[in-house]
Amino acid sequence: MLVPFVVSIAYGGQDMTAFLWSILITAAVSLALSFIKPKDKAFKTRDAFAAVAVSWLAVSLFGALPFYFSGCFGSVVDCVFESISGFTTTGATILRDIEGLPHGILFWRSFTHWIGGMGVLVFMLAVMPSMNASSINLLRAESSGPSPGRIVPRIRETARIMYLIYLAMTVVLVAALIITGLPVYDAFIHSFSTAGTGGFSNMNASVGAYGNVAAEVVITVFTFLFGVSFTLYFCLIKRNFKQAYKDQELRLYFGIVVVSIMIITFNILKMYGSFAEALRQSSFQVVTIISTTGFSTASTNTWPALSQIILILLMVTGCCAGSTGGGIKLIRVLLLLKGVRNEINKVIHPKSVKAISINDKKVDNEKMAGMAMFVVIYLAIFTVSTLIISIEGRDIVTSFTTAISALSNIGPYFDPVSHIGDYAAFTPLSKIVLSFCMLAGRLEFLPVLILFRPSVWARGKTRKMEA
Amino acid sequence: MLVPFVVSIAYGGQDMTAFLWSILITAAVSLALSFIKPKDKAFKTRDAFAAVAVSWLAVSLFGALPFYFSGCFGSVVDCVFESISGFTTTGATILRDIEGLPHGILFWRSFTHWIGGMGVLVFMLAVMPSMNASSINLLRAESSGPSPGRIVPRIRETARIMYLIYLAMTVVLVAALIITGLPVYDAFIHSFSTAGTGGFSNMNASVGAYGNVAAEVVITVFTFLFGVSFTLYFCLIKRNFKQAYKDQELRLYFGIVVVSIMIITFNILKMYGSFAEALRQSSFQVVTIISTTGFSTASTNTWPALSQIILILLMVTGCCAGSTGGGIKLIRVLLLLKGVRNEINKVIHPKSVKAISINDKKVDNEKMAGMAMFVVIYLAIFTVSTLIISIEGRDIVTSFTTAISALSNIGPYFDPVSHIGDYAAFTPLSKIVLSFCMLAGRLEFLPVLILFRPSVWARGKTRKMEA
Repeated sequence: MLVPFVVSIAYGGQDMTAFLWSILITAAVSLALSFIKPKDKAFKTRDAFAAVAVSWLAVSLFGALPFYFSGCFGSVVDCVFESISGFTTTGATILRDIEGLPHGILFWRSFTHWIGGMGVLVFMLAVMPSMNASSINLLRAESSGPSPGRIVPRIRETARIMYLIYLAMTVVLVAALIITGLPVYDAFIHSFSTAGTGGFSNMNASVGAYGNVAAEVVITVFTFLFGVSFTLYFCLIKRNFKQAYKDQELRLYFGIVVVSIMIITFNILKMYGSFAEALRQSSFQVVTIISTTGFSTASTNTWPALSQIILILLMVTGCCAGSTGGGIKLIRVLLLLKGVRNEINKVIHPKSVKAISINDKKVDNEKMAGMAMFVVIYLAIFTVSTLIISIEGRDIVTSFTTAISALSNIGPYFDPVSHIGDYAAFTPLSKIVLSFCMLAGRLEFLPVLILFRPSVWARGKTRKMEA
Repeated sequence: MLVPFVVSIAYGGQDMTAFLWSILITAAVSLALSFIKPKDKAFKTRDAFAAVAVSWLAVSLFGALPFYFSGCFGSVVDCVFESISGFTTTGATILRDIEGLPHGILFWRSFTHWIGGMGVLVFMLAVMPSMNASSINLLRAESSGPSPGRIVPRIRETARIMYLIYLAMTVVLVAALIITGLPVYDAFIHSFSTAGTGGFSNMNASVGAYGNVAAEVVITVFTFLFGVSFTLYFCLIKRNFKQAYKDQELRLYFGIVVVSIMIITFNILKMYGSFAEALRQSSFQVVTIISTTGFSTASTNTWPALSQIILILLMVTGCCAGSTGGGIKLIRVLLLLKGVRNEINKVIHPKSVKAISINDKKVDNEKMAGMAMFVVIYLAIFTVSTLIISIEGRDIVTSFTTAISALSNIGPYFDPVSHIGDYAAFTPLSKIVLSFCMLAGRLEFLPVLILFRPSVWARGKTRKMEA
């Protein structure tokens, strides 16, 4: 929080005291907690999963302090919602007038995207010195996708390399945005949001406020790039171009983006008159949605159903595993479709069914089952959340797209009736459910879900049972 | 078709010639086909699956003949749509004014439900004398749910017993409806539709047209009963009450119905004034939807979002495997949720995870994977169909609920904009896609999907490859 504190002072310090209080409280609690020494230093998978979930919750709560002390937010629920939305890189906001907020607070909002994008704990791993071998479990629980990349043998090195790539790309993006004519402050805000695939802006009309085509193109390109797995960038650095070029998930990602842009461009052509304008709107929207960023340049609520349904599907799938984006991840979609093909082949040639593979690596049945279960969990949480949100009495489309938006960490939702787009008017119950969805979606469910099993909390007891 | 032919004559014979022509054509083609002798009498799984899909398509096409010759339907696509909708027990209609149609045609429509409910081929198995041991594959490909019940060792006995139970329940239902005051003709029509969980009626306002509470209650109860697995009725006949009572799928079915009725009753209470009226409407709708019948007594398009979303979810899940209803089937939902619990337990106690079981029987990983793939296939076909249907330019809710309705063989869909409910105004493209969904859904995907693999058609070639 020291970064936004400095920003706050630089811009007149209107919200300086909010950060001062927040920093003091956070520091005090951390100091107190650091006196509790764990008896056993070895992390099991279960402990790592639970630790990650609890850490994220704690970080979100402390991150909500500046919002609370600034007095710009309605209730405690609103502050926590906004903070979780920030760290999980969702970008759903309960604010209706963003431009009225002080600079420090707005900076903090987007900065939470940047921290949350790569992972709060990966950040700590990269920075903190005392980490042992079992920390890989932390990384595994937090990173997105089914196969977390341990790029180099040493876990801390991996975390550092990933953060360096992340930092470098962000710096290039900031520079590019300044060149296109965005104010320096705005360039930082939107770079943080783009890098983390979050979606918070400092303008009420989001990126559309500038009417700056060059900036839109830069953001579109970088949004796409931040939706690619970071292990592939590592391959590029190692000059392993072939592996990156042949990556099946990347190809699928690229293919889906191109096809979706084409279909939507033709579908909305009538609304925008010229092909160029339709292409501009559709490409920005497709990329911002599939990368689960959620910036906006136009109201998609008035787009035809075909375009809207394509965007909703992209919300569900999301982008590549190992990127900063959310959703089910394309690698899972790809593998499950391969599983379907296998299932059909089993009927035709029961004896000669090949194992499923991706990028020439075989995927065992255990992993396939885990992936299918991931989709089932997604559907189950989606179903229950939609039901609870629908108690509000809003229409069906609003009810289920808000749930998808939160689960896939996107932000915007479809609202065919009132065309609003923010979450200000939702009930506290819906906000709590959506906050849960954001956290569960960001951590890919299992770390959050195991917190609901009593045996995780009763440590001593289960230890004995296992012994 | 002889049955509706007789009915047609009895009611004045307005549509007599339509049936005469249809019977002649069907008989001629059957006779011609019967001269083609298969070289190899042994059925493999693949052959059985393909045979089932082709048979259903053929039956649907011949079943469309009376509609075509009657001249009451618009185009060939419409006739085939109505016929497929009948045999698959969907009950989606392209007719807007049903009451103007001749008696024979309306009788045929509902009669297709009754035949299709238990299965066209199971019907043949029960009636025809020359069937060998490999016919079990036919039964397996056609019957609903993951574990087709071979109740008694001999396959023909199984088919006969199931049809006898089916017939007996239908007779009781007809008698009950006549007692409640429905005309004899109407009682037959609605009994066929209820037994097959179809949904065709001879009234424009469906069951709601009578305003007959007793008839509604009878239909509600029997609709629920036809959503139960027929193997359980066999258990009851065998006085094996304990097995039926302990059946986990039945318990889930009952639980979901009761909870859904309660929530919806309170949700629509304001709309209907009295608790009794709200209970009447909600119980009828919940049962007719979860059993995938799709009768209606009221327009659910004006119900609040919570109620509508519950009904949409029931459309997806459907009722019990081994019943005449459609959908994913509750046994799959139950097992997949158990799979999720297992996945969570794996993180907590990696070494002590129990196998998944239902009704004290273990379910192996192979079967679990098949079930997960079933859901993935459902989602994939649902997604593509929704996209194609949305080209029509209707709203999102209409686009995706028509696809669900067809896939789960229900009939009605949600249409928040124009509140229509029939399929008359849809484009031929949408009607073809929906017809495909109905067939694919009724046969549980694999039999229909393998037809798209070229190797299924190139018999000689694959035989050689396997040898």
